[in-house]
Amino acid sequence: MTIDYLESLQCPTAAEGRALAFTLARKTIAAIQTDPEVRKKLRPTYAEDTAQLIASSQVVAIEFQTIAMANNFWRDEK
Amino acid sequence: MTIDYLESLQCPTAAEGRALAFTLARKTIAAIQTDPEVRKKLRPTYAEDTAQLIASSQVVAIEFQTIAMANNFWRDEK
Amino acid sequence: MTIDYLESLQCPTAAEGRALAFTLARKTIAAIQTDPEVRKKLRPTYAEDTAQLIASSQVVAIEFQTIAMANNFWRDEK
Amino acid sequence: MTIDYLESLQCPTAAEGRALAFTLARKTIAAIQTDPEVRKKLRPTYAEDTAQLIASSQVVAIEFQTIAMANNFWRDEK
Amino acid sequence: MTIDYLESLQCPTAAEGRALAFTLARKTIAAIQTDPEVRKKLRPTYAEDTAQLIASSQVVAIEFQTIAMANNFWRDEK
Amino acid sequence: MTIDYLESLQCPTAAEGRALAFTLARKTIAAIQTDPEVRKKLRPTYAEDTAQLIASSQVVAIEFQTIAMANNFWRDEK
Repeated sequence: MTIDYLESLQCPTAAEGRALAFTLARKTIAAIQTDPEVRKKLRPTYAEDTAQLIASSQVVAIEFQTIAMANNFWRDEK
Repeated sequence: MTIDYLESLQCPTAAEGRALAFTLARKTIAAIQTDPEVRKKLRPTYAEDTAQLIASSQVVAIEFQTIAMANNFWRDEK
Repeated sequence: MTIDYLESLQCPTAAEGRALAFTLARKTIAAIQTDPEVRKKLRPTYAEDTAQLIASSQVVAIEFQTIAMANNFWRDEK
Repeated sequence: MTIDYLESLQCPTAAEGRALAFTLARKTIAAIQTDPEVRKKLRPTYAEDTAQLIASSQVVAIEFQTIAMANNFWRDEK
Repeated sequence: MTIDYLESLQCPTAAEGRALAFTLARKTIAAIQTDPEVRKKLRPTYAEDTAQLIASSQVVAIEFQTIAMANNFWRDEK
Repeated sequence: MTIDYLESLQCPTAAEGRALAFTLARKTIAAIQTDPEVRKKLRPTYAEDTAQLIASSQVVAIEFQTIAMANNFWRDEK
């Protein structure tokens, strides 16, 4: 397994940290379902299924918590 | 992906932190299902489905935990 | 969104912290499904559905974890 | 809401902390479904449904994490 | 409720900590569904149901997080 | 239960930590469903089921949080 999308958990801003959370969530799906054609076909299934949209949001929330911890919550940024 | 709704995790009060948790949860859905018309159409589906309401509450709870940590739980506020 | 039920995460006792966890969980549902008549109608659905009772318990558990952290786990209370 | 089962999160041993996690999980169900007759009726539903047994285990795991943190993981106990 | 499988959260190695996470997850199921015959009967149901295998993995992951924290992540072990 | 895939939670880089999170998630499934033939047969079921892909992602996210904590979030790495 090659992970080329996570050089570091350090992000200059909270917004960039949030974007990384989305990337991690998306890349995990891609690592399990490696066929891009299948993923493309599956996408409408969950993007119109509210239960799955909510479940996806939860994954993003968990990844973001880790990233926020890693960046000391960007406390000194403001 | 542009994230223009998260300048900082710092919130003056716990109530404002809670509101940010709702915003994050809502914006994640919008980032995955980008079509506002579809989102509008989907809304009644989950707002009357208790299982999905509970699942949404869990996402808010997780986001809030992160925000509360970031603000040192507003310990000095009271 | 007005959040008038969370002035602080500080609670004098663990029991009061637990009660706040229930309040937060309940208020989140109310914030998403804003119609009290609909909520009233939905209540029996989940109160007799064990899967949803368990899912609700999980939300309370997460909220409580945050509140317990905020109060330093009431370590000095006893 | 009266919470008379949580005087403190402090437990002398890890085993007692684990037992408290079960208590918290069980009492939350009872707080949402307040009718003991209904709870009794519902019990077989989930005790023979593996998905719900697993979901219940997750609630216990989360409650226990909070209790373990509160007791500094009983590090000095051994 | 007698808990005779958790004398301590301290484990000499990460691998032993992982094994304890499995034990805790398994014992929780046994504490809720106390009849060993029923558990035996239920086992094939979830061991061939991927959704339930994934849900079980999540419980193990949460228990392990607690155990890893308790052992300071075995940082000094290597 | 023999756990031969987790000598340590220490990983030189965030990417290696992420890979370990996948390993842990995968090995847990294998520990519960021990028959490799059954696992092989089950794989297509969840790799084309978006709800299960999302649930798997959540397990990876939780394992990764633990690993990231163990490595102090690779703060000094960059």
